[in-house]
Amino acid sequence: MTDNRPLRSDMGWSTPDKIVVKGFDLTKDLLGKIDLGAMAFLEITGRIPNAREADVFNALLVTLVEHGMTPHAIATRMVHMAAPEALQAAVAAGLCGVGTVFAGGSEQAARMLQAALKDKGADADLAALAEEIVADHRRRKVPVPGIGHPLHKPIDPRTPVLFAIAQRNGFRGRYIGLMEAVCASAERTFARSLPINATGAIGSILCELQFPWQICRGIAVISRAIGLVGHIAEEMRNPIAREIWDRTEHEVTRNATAGKD
Amino acid sequence: MTDNRPLRSDMGWSTPDKIVVKGFDLTKDLLGKIDLGAMAFLEITGRIPNAREADVFNALLVTLVEHGMTPHAIATRMVHMAAPEALQAAVAAGLCGVGTVFAGGSEQAARMLQAALKDKGADADLAALAEEIVADHRRRKVPVPGIGHPLHKPIDPRTPVLFAIAQRNGFRGRYIGLMEAVCASAERTFARSLPINATGAIGSILCELQFPWQICRGIAVISRAIGLVGHIAEEMRNPIAREIWDRTEHEVTRNATAGKD
Amino acid sequence: MTDNRPLRSDMGWSTPDKIVVKGFDLTKDLLGKIDLGAMAFLEITGRIPNAREADVFNALLVTLVEHGMTPHAIATRMVHMAAPEALQAAVAAGLCGVGTVFAGGSEQAARMLQAALKDKGADADLAALAEEIVADHRRRKVPVPGIGHPLHKPIDPRTPVLFAIAQRNGFRGRYIGLMEAVCASAERTFARSLPINATGAIGSILCELQFPWQICRGIAVISRAIGLVGHIAEEMRNPIAREIWDRTEHEVTRNATAGKD
Amino acid sequence: MTDNRPLRSDMGWSTPDKIVVKGFDLTKDLLGKIDLGAMAFLEITGRIPNAREADVFNALLVTLVEHGMTPHAIATRMVHMAAPEALQAAVAAGLCGVGTVFAGGSEQAARMLQAALKDKGADADLAALAEEIVADHRRRKVPVPGIGHPLHKPIDPRTPVLFAIAQRNGFRGRYIGLMEAVCASAERTFARSLPINATGAIGSILCELQFPWQICRGIAVISRAIGLVGHIAEEMRNPIAREIWDRTEHEVTRNATAGKD
Repeated sequence: MTDNRPLRSDMGWSTPDKIVVKGFDLTKDLLGKIDLGAMAFLEITGRIPNAREADVFNALLVTLVEHGMTPHAIATRMVHMAAPEALQAAVAAGLCGVGTVFAGGSEQAARMLQAALKDKGADADLAALAEEIVADHRRRKVPVPGIGHPLHKPIDPRTPVLFAIAQRNGFRGRYIGLMEAVCASAERTFARSLPINATGAIGSILCELQFPWQICRGIAVISRAIGLVGHIAEEMRNPIAREIWDRTEHEVTRNATAGKD
Repeated sequence: MTDNRPLRSDMGWSTPDKIVVKGFDLTKDLLGKIDLGAMAFLEITGRIPNAREADVFNALLVTLVEHGMTPHAIATRMVHMAAPEALQAAVAAGLCGVGTVFAGGSEQAARMLQAALKDKGADADLAALAEEIVADHRRRKVPVPGIGHPLHKPIDPRTPVLFAIAQRNGFRGRYIGLMEAVCASAERTFARSLPINATGAIGSILCELQFPWQICRGIAVISRAIGLVGHIAEEMRNPIAREIWDRTEHEVTRNATAGKD
Repeated sequence: MTDNRPLRSDMGWSTPDKIVVKGFDLTKDLLGKIDLGAMAFLEITGRIPNAREADVFNALLVTLVEHGMTPHAIATRMVHMAAPEALQAAVAAGLCGVGTVFAGGSEQAARMLQAALKDKGADADLAALAEEIVADHRRRKVPVPGIGHPLHKPIDPRTPVLFAIAQRNGFRGRYIGLMEAVCASAERTFARSLPINATGAIGSILCELQFPWQICRGIAVISRAIGLVGHIAEEMRNPIAREIWDRTEHEVTRNATAGKD
Repeated sequence: MTDNRPLRSDMGWSTPDKIVVKGFDLTKDLLGKIDLGAMAFLEITGRIPNAREADVFNALLVTLVEHGMTPHAIATRMVHMAAPEALQAAVAAGLCGVGTVFAGGSEQAARMLQAALKDKGADADLAALAEEIVADHRRRKVPVPGIGHPLHKPIDPRTPVLFAIAQRNGFRGRYIGLMEAVCASAERTFARSLPINATGAIGSILCELQFPWQICRGIAVISRAIGLVGHIAEEMRNPIAREIWDRTEHEVTRNATAGKD
């Protein structure tokens, strides 16, 4: 055992009369003093956000909580119907789908922006970087992260509000600038409306807050966990999972057996 | 299809220029105006909390975010090591363990309190109800929810702080009163220190906020989702999962093979 | 560290040239020599089943693999659509729903039978035990596990086939006998058709194989994992998740917005 | 609703007296007639395997069931300790980790082989293709899938056994040939022992069985689900999760608090 690496963590620890979380005394420094969004910031970054950071970060988290009857919400409701005694498993099931296609997009936007601005000085030519990014995605035939929306046209109504909240708090920097330049370049290149969507806005603001892109999906996971608990609360009052399931099973059975007898 | 029940939900919906969440315009009414804890309250109850409710509810949520190297945190870190590309699955794995033994206890406390005070008037005899509750649990040989803690003795430091936050906001009512009476009765009955623990405090305050007991585990799920994202963020900077795994596997192998060759 | 309890496990271990699983040499004793059902038996019980046990156990497992478009299958397909890069998370999501309402029923049947026959000799009066069981469930107003089916009437076609497979292999004992007596008693008591369903058949046969009831849900989990991988394979060839989601979201939005402008 | 796409699935459907799975009558054609491995083959491919295919496929599945105290097993045991009432959630938690780093490797090997042999005739030059593959991975500085093992040296003992089972059943074709050529080329290029490991063997044999690479991770998921149920069965008899957790938490707390008072 002599060659064991010691296990170190700064998340938290307890003694009989004290609970320490990220270096702060839970009962003296945190309870009743910071809100849940600020607490999430502390958990991820290791420090309590100032008021400006907390304002921006809460807004990002609030944005991603609820999007109506998403695939995640349907999955959670199905599992809740089948295992109502295990509420946590129903939330976990829906969260499993916070992936590359739905809800995980801010990760890709932040990754793109951080890669482009890595090692670049304050005088980086954002328009030129944006042209490169768009050309590269076009060449690889993959969509540019953070722009375009199937429903919200010509603009995604969340984007200007989030950017305004960032700006009023002093977080409108070059990541947002690059995201806007990417949008402009893509609209020229593809000759159609490709507004910055909510994931593009959130991804670029997370960069302004200095979050590494690798953790950005976690922001969506936190918000979505809240939303999925909300869906279970509604399902308890007004269940619809069984109706969705019944219709699906009946139609599949009808189509599979048609003309079989 | 004529006998389908219509699918109704009030969670949210969108049009090209508008996103509605629980009846509120996301961009006009919520973004930059409510914090994440208030948003969670809205998701679950359908209304925006007033400042007092938001203060209390945020404190409950903040309490449950982080408890150090819990079984959930270890599970999440193991899964993150094995599938780092699927951050959401690592959080989901840890959340699967928000069950009856760990982290789900406020559900049981709230259930006990709501069952006891159902159909009771404002003049209910809390001491007598508490005696009944404790006697019933003793008879069934099951622990009384919400009291006792293996580490935090003689009191759980979170409980007085949470009760003070509830009180300053006008939420110190008969559910907290009954929880305190249960604690007193149990300490007399079992003749040892059985302080109200954090789940007892949280369960009784959730009752004061009029949350049905069935959704209380969801509060722990929300907080723990944040905590588990925090553990992944630390694991990215300072991984310890591999060391825990290595030690476990080596010891098991050593013990299994001892004297086998 | 001196007071650590040693970590012991008999699951398996490896050396550079050898892999041992439950005491057997994987490459010499198992590969190409036992089928997957027998391997599952070994994993759970610690010994290789004889041919009769393997025949019965494979049949139980095969029964539970596929039930068409269940809530679990819908959950898995939703998650696969949202996070196609994480196939394992989609299976995990569906498995989260192997609970008390769907797919977990054999656990409850086995528990009932094992509780009733505990400490009973070979001459136990099955009819009298069955009467007690049915009367007790009636009194508590909870359904008797293992009997009745919404679709399969007057009998569940799987039950006689599974019982025949058990019988031809020498596993038709008093647990099956008690299950049949419970069925007969319940049909008399409630004066309607309440056939032994597949979970009742499987639960009672698992008792004959001496599986403790606590692990019975695991049998359903194994089978369902296979079924859910099958659903993903079909979803890859012929996706239907998006259509289910689209219809649900559109109807919910239509109903929520009706008369709102 | 007129533009709905019909929901079609061939997984299965039921009538009161009949259950159909993938076109077969469950009770007449499958129960007692095919083993669990053959059933998994049917679920994924849509047809019952012949005896040779079933022999090979069962061997692949059996290989992946148990690997001792893996990260997945630890995650499952942690969740089982915290939520013992939800066995399915504990298995789901472990399965979430069948990802790119552990247990998901056969997907990458199969993908590599299928990409290389796509559109190639029976006379493809395997040695030349292997050189290209190795050179390409070397250039991109990523490991070649399916070769090398930290413990099993100079060979992985599972590989020759699996290849022999494939050969005796007539499934030793050009995918296995290419995998062997890749191994030879990599050992020359990197001048060290890089044996075909179990995931390389399994990935190439799955190609011989004509499984698309996209579903290969599902094979590992099926096997691992069985293994994780086995770990829970052992944990029920001989729990070790609490000891692992205790040691971890105590060491982390000790290291975090050292010198803090």
